[in-house]
Amino acid sequence: MKSSIDPVQNLAELIACPSITPAEGGALTVLEAMLAPLGFSVERPTFGEDGTPDVENLYARRSGNGPHLMFAGHTDVVPVGDAAAWTYPPFSAAIHNGEMYGRGAVDMKGGIACFVAAVGRHLEKHGGLNGSISFVITGDEEGPSINGTGKLLDWAKAKGESWDAAVVGEPTNPEKMGDMMKIGRRGGLSGTIVVHGVQGHVAYPHLADNPIRGLVTLIESLLYPAFDNGTKDFQATNLEFTTIDVGNPAVNVIPAKATATFNIRFNDTWTDETLMAEIHNRLDKAAGRHKLRPGKMAPVNYELTWRNRVSHVFLTHDEKLIGTLTSAVEATTGKRPQLSTSGGTSDARFIKDYCPVVEFGLVGKTMHMVDERVAIADLETLTQIYERFIADFFA
Amino acid sequence: MKSSIDPVQNLAELIACPSITPAEGGALTVLEAMLAPLGFSVERPTFGEDGTPDVENLYARRSGNGPHLMFAGHTDVVPVGDAAAWTYPPFSAAIHNGEMYGRGAVDMKGGIACFVAAVGRHLEKHGGLNGSISFVITGDEEGPSINGTGKLLDWAKAKGESWDAAVVGEPTNPEKMGDMMKIGRRGGLSGTIVVHGVQGHVAYPHLADNPIRGLVTLIESLLYPAFDNGTKDFQATNLEFTTIDVGNPAVNVIPAKATATFNIRFNDTWTDETLMAEIHNRLDKAAGRHKLRPGKMAPVNYELTWRNRVSHVFLTHDEKLIGTLTSAVEATTGKRPQLSTSGGTSDARFIKDYCPVVEFGLVGKTMHMVDERVAIADLETLTQIYERFIADFFA
Repeated sequence: MKSSIDPVQNLAELIACPSITPAEGGALTVLEAMLAPLGFSVERPTFGEDGTPDVENLYARRSGNGPHLMFAGHTDVVPVGDAAAWTYPPFSAAIHNGEMYGRGAVDMKGGIACFVAAVGRHLEKHGGLNGSISFVITGDEEGPSINGTGKLLDWAKAKGESWDAAVVGEPTNPEKMGDMMKIGRRGGLSGTIVVHGVQGHVAYPHLADNPIRGLVTLIESLLYPAFDNGTKDFQATNLEFTTIDVGNPAVNVIPAKATATFNIRFNDTWTDETLMAEIHNRLDKAAGRHKLRPGKMAPVNYELTWRNRVSHVFLTHDEKLIGTLTSAVEATTGKRPQLSTSGGTSDARFIKDYCPVVEFGLVGKTMHMVDERVAIADLETLTQIYERFIADFFA
Repeated sequence: MKSSIDPVQNLAELIACPSITPAEGGALTVLEAMLAPLGFSVERPTFGEDGTPDVENLYARRSGNGPHLMFAGHTDVVPVGDAAAWTYPPFSAAIHNGEMYGRGAVDMKGGIACFVAAVGRHLEKHGGLNGSISFVITGDEEGPSINGTGKLLDWAKAKGESWDAAVVGEPTNPEKMGDMMKIGRRGGLSGTIVVHGVQGHVAYPHLADNPIRGLVTLIESLLYPAFDNGTKDFQATNLEFTTIDVGNPAVNVIPAKATATFNIRFNDTWTDETLMAEIHNRLDKAAGRHKLRPGKMAPVNYELTWRNRVSHVFLTHDEKLIGTLTSAVEATTGKRPQLSTSGGTSDARFIKDYCPVVEFGLVGKTMHMVDERVAIADLETLTQIYERFIADFFA
């Protein structure tokens, strides 16, 4: 049991596994070997789906009398990028100047390494736990996120599991330990607009209908005005067009069709439904007042298709969960973390349907970059925060 | 000599040659065989250029004492499209219900067939000509137009040729013989705009700069307001975007670059230079007042590249040429043709640098379509118009 109370040793073992998404790379086996001696019963379900790679996941529970706390995260990592550009090989876990280098150091093998150490230390000190802890660990967070946390929670629920609260160990601090905790996330929606025009020769535009004119009108209607100015808990809703494609190589031909895709990150001003309705409304209004050419009004003939995967906006209101973790952060770092809902989605979007969830982990500055690395001191700090949180949560 | 005075026979022989651009297909050889017996000395220069197919052309002159009239056209034709959809095979020259079917029937083997017949009839009646006639016929009008009329005129000029007036036999009548003569064309310009942004994650737009926002701003600046409302002799200048391309498959990524291409057909309000300056000015102004996102101004970082080939706007002012052809049309059809500058470019854009040029030919309704065809009666009408014009021109 001794070894797993050292987050540095835990992280070195995890970094050594080349678990580039969706490969397991040995990382879940290493984690299982840390958890089993701590009294966790470990299961390793694999999920798959047509058109996506099979992905290994891990569910480990140590049962006790009392509330049930989930710790969630992932052992898969993003690709190393230019391997030659790394100062130390990306799976070497080399330590230099008080920092450990390696892909996944902060995102987020580091968070897992610290939580394991925190649980180990708690058990060592107290000999047990007044409740249950589960590790919900996926290998599909950096990939399509189809065969990971969402399915793992469904699977666990189906066999009777339920949880009282969850902590996700993603790197949440922008600069220093204690900066920021995440208590919610904006929602996300994507859609594709196709405008159908009438092909023709550029010299005879009155015989054609250039779909690019209509598309530009529609795009403007979604870019301006802004959807909102943000709310008490959230940044402003923001829409970005990610691509426009026509693919017409002939410079004397007006094309028949133009396509654009957008992604919108939205706050609690909206639900998926009200936001979709607003977008349809803006597009319909703009389409209706479109000027095909001087003196010629013609509605834009368009279709809007929503992409399948919607992330719902959420905000955690559990004062006890937020307060307990905030206190642990403040007691350890001397700083009261900002409670934020900024940034991209995380697997918390799946967890929030089962129990209140917050996110707190390492400093994210080097995530996804060459020379991803973590300060050894931060690993100790995070372990102490998690240990204190566990003690208070189960007190 | 007898055979070539029948435009129907001439056209049947030309249609039988599958001269899909850039293939000669036997068409110039057939034409040479018609012209040589009429006293023309025929040359067949081939032009080529890196990256373009070699193209055969024909220059035939019958010399005499007096002015030099050019007849210009092309024997290449556009592809047949869906061959199975034709009522009669596209190179069969089948006649049905008073119409001859075949690719090139009106665009523009028909015009050539009629002019040859007109010259033949004139020579038959008068035994000679008070001047010179040249046929400037290319096989590269429907293709890139790089190895055709432009080079053929340079080549002829280099060996001392010069002309007093030119008629292009393209189909100019929208509905009926006598509707329309073309006395000029708008100019044409194409350009490509590349906007450089900063790639990033859609959830962190403040760390990125979405080039699509900038591109849409630039596009709007070229679409509105209109460049002009047209002039006495010309339609309004018109700009069409022909493609926009980003090619970003990732719906959570803000792309680094966005590209759009436009084509502009412009009238005599502008020269190439003033129009290019206006476009640069509009783009620079729009780029400078661009709003990157609410509260954040940032100029659009863009490049504009002009495509190589510019068509200059032109208008023929030769009252004698226009008047003589107008009278011939009116005397034959009873209609005074509209003098127009509408539509796309033609090889007249090359000829206008050598001598005054007008265009008059058949009814263009079926050009480039399946079942391209010409009324037999129209072939006779056009031959009579051309014959009368030749008589008056050399009178």
